[in-house]
Amino acid sequence: MSQIRPPYGSVYLIPTTLGDNEPLEVLPLSVKKTIEEIDCFIVENEKTARRFIKKICPKKPQQSLQIEVLNKFTDPSLLASFLDPCLQGQSVGVISEAGCPGVADPGAEIVAIAHQKKIQVLPLVGPSSLLLSLMASGFNGQSFTFNGYLPIDQKERSKAIKDLENTMMKKGQTQMFIETPYRNEALLTSLCKTLLPNTLLCIACDISLENEFIKTESVSYWKKNLPDLHKRPCIFLIGS
Amino acid sequence: MSQIRPPYGSVYLIPTTLGDNEPLEVLPLSVKKTIEEIDCFIVENEKTARRFIKKICPKKPQQSLQIEVLNKFTDPSLLASFLDPCLQGQSVGVISEAGCPGVADPGAEIVAIAHQKKIQVLPLVGPSSLLLSLMASGFNGQSFTFNGYLPIDQKERSKAIKDLENTMMKKGQTQMFIETPYRNEALLTSLCKTLLPNTLLCIACDISLENEFIKTESVSYWKKNLPDLHKRPCIFLIGS
Repeated sequence: MSQIRPPYGSVYLIPTTLGDNEPLEVLPLSVKKTIEEIDCFIVENEKTARRFIKKICPKKPQQSLQIEVLNKFTDPSLLASFLDPCLQGQSVGVISEAGCPGVADPGAEIVAIAHQKKIQVLPLVGPSSLLLSLMASGFNGQSFTFNGYLPIDQKERSKAIKDLENTMMKKGQTQMFIETPYRNEALLTSLCKTLLPNTLLCIACDISLENEFIKTESVSYWKKNLPDLHKRPCIFLIGS
Repeated sequence: MSQIRPPYGSVYLIPTTLGDNEPLEVLPLSVKKTIEEIDCFIVENEKTARRFIKKICPKKPQQSLQIEVLNKFTDPSLLASFLDPCLQGQSVGVISEAGCPGVADPGAEIVAIAHQKKIQVLPLVGPSSLLLSLMASGFNGQSFTFNGYLPIDQKERSKAIKDLENTMMKKGQTQMFIETPYRNEALLTSLCKTLLPNTLLCIACDISLENEFIKTESVSYWKKNLPDLHKRPCIFLIGS
């Protein structure tokens, strides 16, 4: 079943590494081949995107790349025009700062517009700290929720944590959430205070990197063994 | 921070292709390297696992592999013994039938036991039809739930679909679910009957394969344009 008129280009969703590791250790060849063939990119950060392109395709000329920046400062009224190359038959690659575009990262808005314009969307395989931590947690992978960030206000946060624990116990549904890295340890303190001692908490930190740390333990264990999470990218999971 | 006593082996979670494509098109080199170094595997299906190992590491001798089968017929009391090689310093690889072990696939039980035994768990990058379809849907990737299978009973199913639509609209949370491939078209009929005409439904089918089909459209569009989903692996998503 053909999704688009033949002259249209496609939108490729191009994952990147989660840190400074060798691209092909965590990305398949299709990522390299796609970048080799594309000259138009929509990226979260131009400097890191160019560095990534250079690392995975050292011979690709950088001067001729057409790069649009998509982040929280981008004027939403400009987004549709970022896909103009597709209408002229050229494919566009979306690259986020780290990991997979559109999942806990910008990119979804562009994909939504692509579907409205009947442009084919092609997601490529790459590292997602959410997926990798879920796999490695040992928790239920048949039913799970990613909740993004929890509230910052102390009281609202405690209530949110309690609600997640209740949902997890009632439905057997794994609950995942994240925090800004410099607030990880404050979040862990709240978790230790609020969750039941026997609830299992998985902390997954620096996923796919040299210092990767993934451990599932009871809350009572974590209370006595606080790990160093300061400024390290972390996923928190509660489950059974 | 060291997670284990040095003599222990690790548990590697090894993704596979989602179909008959070339392994290194969708899997990074670390998957090949890990398989080269491991001789003990816990697999969902011995025949397909051996075929996959042969395809990605053609020179690896197959006779000496120690393979344990983990599927719904496996006696749960045997699971812990599958990790005995780790206690003797050998690493073990977990391979599911397709995609990522532990996510909508067996494997989580083994990982849970590994954590109890303080054995290091190392997840490798690979294709997950859930993650790829979420990226390509254009829906909210900051908040989402995977719900597994919906009820089969007609009345319970309609109620479940209505509940998912309500949660999606109230929380802006993407809702994902799957069906046994030969029942995909019956599920799509239920979705078209039950969801509001303007609700957006993404159908993602044969992900990462030659006939990949991913499209986000309104329910009223799908009513008039039923795609052929029969016996094709599919992810369904509703979102905004």
